[in-house]
Amino acid sequence: MFNKLCIIGVGLIGGSIAKAARQQGLAKTIVGFGRQQDEENLHIAQQLGVIDDYHLDIAPAVSQADCVLIASPVGSAEAIFKLLKPHWSEETVYSDVGSTKLSIISAAQAVFGSIPCNFVPAHPIAGAEQSGVTAALTDLFCHKRLIITPVAETHPDAITKITVFWQAMGAVVSEMAAHHHDTVLAATSHLPHLLAFALVDLLGRKDEQEEIFKYAAGGFKDFTRIASSDPTMWLDISMANKHALLPLLAQLRTELEKIERLLAENQADELVALFLQANKARQRFLECQAILE
Amino acid sequence: MFNKLCIIGVGLIGGSIAKAARQQGLAKTIVGFGRQQDEENLHIAQQLGVIDDYHLDIAPAVSQADCVLIASPVGSAEAIFKLLKPHWSEETVYSDVGSTKLSIISAAQAVFGSIPCNFVPAHPIAGAEQSGVTAALTDLFCHKRLIITPVAETHPDAITKITVFWQAMGAVVSEMAAHHHDTVLAATSHLPHLLAFALVDLLGRKDEQEEIFKYAAGGFKDFTRIASSDPTMWLDISMANKHALLPLLAQLRTELEKIERLLAENQADELVALFLQANKARQRFLECQAILE
Repeated sequence: MFNKLCIIGVGLIGGSIAKAARQQGLAKTIVGFGRQQDEENLHIAQQLGVIDDYHLDIAPAVSQADCVLIASPVGSAEAIFKLLKPHWSEETVYSDVGSTKLSIISAAQAVFGSIPCNFVPAHPIAGAEQSGVTAALTDLFCHKRLIITPVAETHPDAITKITVFWQAMGAVVSEMAAHHHDTVLAATSHLPHLLAFALVDLLGRKDEQEEIFKYAAGGFKDFTRIASSDPTMWLDISMANKHALLPLLAQLRTELEKIERLLAENQADELVALFLQANKARQRFLECQAILE
Repeated sequence: MFNKLCIIGVGLIGGSIAKAARQQGLAKTIVGFGRQQDEENLHIAQQLGVIDDYHLDIAPAVSQADCVLIASPVGSAEAIFKLLKPHWSEETVYSDVGSTKLSIISAAQAVFGSIPCNFVPAHPIAGAEQSGVTAALTDLFCHKRLIITPVAETHPDAITKITVFWQAMGAVVSEMAAHHHDTVLAATSHLPHLLAFALVDLLGRKDEQEEIFKYAAGGFKDFTRIASSDPTMWLDISMANKHALLPLLAQLRTELEKIERLLAENQADELVALFLQANKARQRFLECQAILE
């Protein structure tokens, strides 16, 4: 499909793309790009055979690449676009994997003045709490969703290329407006991460934390798994999507206040009704997920 | 170990005890007790060979039992003690599996005037979001913690019997004061359940809920698993432990308010420090858990 695929940032996501693309024969050559401080990781990626080669200079990294994928933290998008700008080629399709789409589009706008028609904003709904290329998985995107958030300028041919690429790696591709993407993901991913961080931070500061953790069960382990996610990455995402996140945080506080009031006033009927509604809502969620499997 | 073991309430926990006790040869006969409306479930339990027999009358159920285990929802404790009182035998050891211990002890106090010395309040830290005897597992308690919360009156022989019984089923037994148990479990189990119910209820009431659920990933699935737990059981637990839960809910709201403020004010350093603290706290939790494996 591509002669040369260049991946900017060969971490969990970038590395998994490289592995999946290689397995599916989607690129003859896969090269990585990173900063000086990423060299050790890039070296490991090459040693593992995840990428064929890597560069710390952008020019050779993107030279003659058919496809350039930005897989670095969302906060670095503007810096990456600035690096790419002098080498931007109309023959190449560009895409990204950022968890927030409006911020990526704004970064492109800021650097290029308008969104290049061959840049396809995209987000694979997949991940793990581990990070780095050693955690990369060939089937990370298999049966997972990939959302493309095109803008008016985005060229249909570029969208098609990126769609076909992700479908070949097993992803279920759909399109939505960037604003809508950010609202939905704030609810489903960013808010739960903040909640998990909040809870674990709160408990970890308690005097009896050792006993709390000692006597925690499987439910706690699952509930707090996402609190093991990379702090810098989640700072970036929270900041980039704070306009969608702030109202949700306020709504959740209101919901918790309601539960507190019902509990304090022994309003058993209303409380059990709320738990039951949550029960049914999660059942609907499980049914939505079953379609993917 | 026991000639006759009587289990009051043969659901997920009661059924799993019966299966584990049978596998380990801890009881010659295992009988179940339930209400009229539980008959179908008890019948299934008997058909599955989980219990040998069942009764809807308490007298034959507990007659000549060496051990009576109360495995019904915590809210039913007082009613169960009232049923047991006329048949209470000094030859028998009694215990329970309730998730809140002060409420169980209060219920015994209310019915008996003081805590019978042969009643051992206990709580296995194990469970699943499924309920009913069909979800029962032989190894549910294997490598899991069992907390005994004796009172001053509790006879050491009774504690020993219950300890040996649970150890034989693979549990790691420890003792702590009931008040302390309730504080620790509020933090580690009850608060996360309320949080999961709150989040899923909030999202399930949104107009875009279908898309929210459609685009949710594995992190959301794990995070909300406990929102599929039985609403009535969790109403009982929340009510029974509300004195420990209410301050925790308030503390969590304060923590969320802090995150909102840091986000709104772009306080990146403080926010990433909070995420990092949560990261490290979860790592400590994982290390605590590793000891069990």
